[in-house]
Amino acid sequence: MNLPQFNREIAEIRNDRIRGASELARRCLAILAEAAETLPAADGSEFRQRLLALAAELAAIRPSMAPIGNLLWRWRARIGAANGDLKLLRRLAAEQAAALIALSRQAVTDCATHAARWLGPGRTLMTHSLSSTVLETCRLLGSQGLRMIVTESRPLAEGRRVAKQLSAWNVPTTYITDAQMGLFVARAEGVLVGADSLLADGSAINKVGTALLALAARECGVPFYVCCESFKQRAEDEPPPELEEMASAELEVPAWPGVSARNVYFDITPARLIDAWISETGVRQAVAAP
Amino acid sequence: MNLPQFNREIAEIRNDRIRGASELARRCLAILAEAAETLPAADGSEFRQRLLALAAELAAIRPSMAPIGNLLWRWRARIGAANGDLKLLRRLAAEQAAALIALSRQAVTDCATHAARWLGPGRTLMTHSLSSTVLETCRLLGSQGLRMIVTESRPLAEGRRVAKQLSAWNVPTTYITDAQMGLFVARAEGVLVGADSLLADGSAINKVGTALLALAARECGVPFYVCCESFKQRAEDEPPPELEEMASAELEVPAWPGVSARNVYFDITPARLIDAWISETGVRQAVAAP
Repeated sequence: MNLPQFNREIAEIRNDRIRGASELARRCLAILAEAAETLPAADGSEFRQRLLALAAELAAIRPSMAPIGNLLWRWRARIGAANGDLKLLRRLAAEQAAALIALSRQAVTDCATHAARWLGPGRTLMTHSLSSTVLETCRLLGSQGLRMIVTESRPLAEGRRVAKQLSAWNVPTTYITDAQMGLFVARAEGVLVGADSLLADGSAINKVGTALLALAARECGVPFYVCCESFKQRAEDEPPPELEEMASAELEVPAWPGVSARNVYFDITPARLIDAWISETGVRQAVAAP
Repeated sequence: MNLPQFNREIAEIRNDRIRGASELARRCLAILAEAAETLPAADGSEFRQRLLALAAELAAIRPSMAPIGNLLWRWRARIGAANGDLKLLRRLAAEQAAALIALSRQAVTDCATHAARWLGPGRTLMTHSLSSTVLETCRLLGSQGLRMIVTESRPLAEGRRVAKQLSAWNVPTTYITDAQMGLFVARAEGVLVGADSLLADGSAINKVGTALLALAARECGVPFYVCCESFKQRAEDEPPPELEEMASAELEVPAWPGVSARNVYFDITPARLIDAWISETGVRQAVAAP
């Protein structure tokens, strides 16, 4: 992999509006695995230095998505501590990337298994945006009488991809605009969303509109669950990231003079609106207010 | 006006997604004024009977929009009580319709005058959907440092018409998707929305998403104001109307098997989330909770 190729990959991940945080983190690891095999270097030391620099660059491009930083940090820690010649380091870097990709995939599967067991059969659930853990949970519960309520998720309407997939799995689905979430959440027995990051206090960064849905769910007494791998957890000492804003062109409005179209992609659902967190290790319920 | 013409007018009002409740109420009165001049009838008694039947039909077609029922009820009361020959009744019916149209227009103007005085200069306000009283308020405050935050209002995006008009009035405007309302309401000093109906307890029926915005405003401590004419008030003994649902085709999603696309147009903002009601008679503030 040469530098122009790497920069194209970087740009692709930066502009990706479709894939979730975990999927993009695995894509970053796959890029590093490829770079590990092909990056030109005179010796092991130069190789390690150049590869770690690429990893640092990748780790910084999607600040709202904690697993990219977390998985790459683990990978960097392993490579940074390794000794050996160029050939050995190439193999080690590729193997470690593959191992972390497998670990991330397994974590998604385990999250969904816990979520499906916790939620149980015959439920009507609501979700917002597209989450791989939520989709996998729906697949597991699809033959057990699950019904879903799915929001559109403007501007790019990931909700359409969710609805199409649920249709393929024969899950009866209600599809609504984002503005209707307050009306329809009362018909759900629970809300299940993924997250791009979890802050240290349990607050969840996810597609914009999630915090609104959590407010509406609390208003109706409908429990609100966040299901994501522990790779989504940000450290205690990390400040909340800036919420990424994408091109306003996605809103497809004319350029009226004096009108600024805004397209912030994420919001923060405060921990006090979350009733349980589901990860690959199990379910953690919120402590009831005294 | 013959029956096919009248039925076309009825269908147009039933399917209208653009005009607000007051504007459609005035359109109903204009239709009755036209019918008053042209409706075939042998004598005054037959004329009155036929005209009142048309009015009753018009009054029922948009249940979420109180002013249609209220203004037509006033008109019917005047015509029902009138005596005279056919010629006199024709003139009276047309005159009464014109008088109520003028009264409705004046009420919108007076609402906006009160709202502009109450809100004052130099404010950043947020709105959802399109309201004629809110737009008129913006026109009045446009030269006084007003800044607006406007939501898209899916599915038909009335927010675009609002943004375009604000641009023409040189009001600096931020345009956002509905899902971003929770993020941006914190930047507003107040939320100002219209209503299609007010329930007896002060709860407001308005474009779907309004109740979500009110929840988000309360969460951030931003005051939430409803500005509408008293013709929007429903009577104490009227049950809340069924919330109108429009064609799911407006969501422009494919017909996936097992997926039902829903398009409910209105929601109810509970009175406890409203800080003040502004009408043509002035401003009524909510009583603070004890």
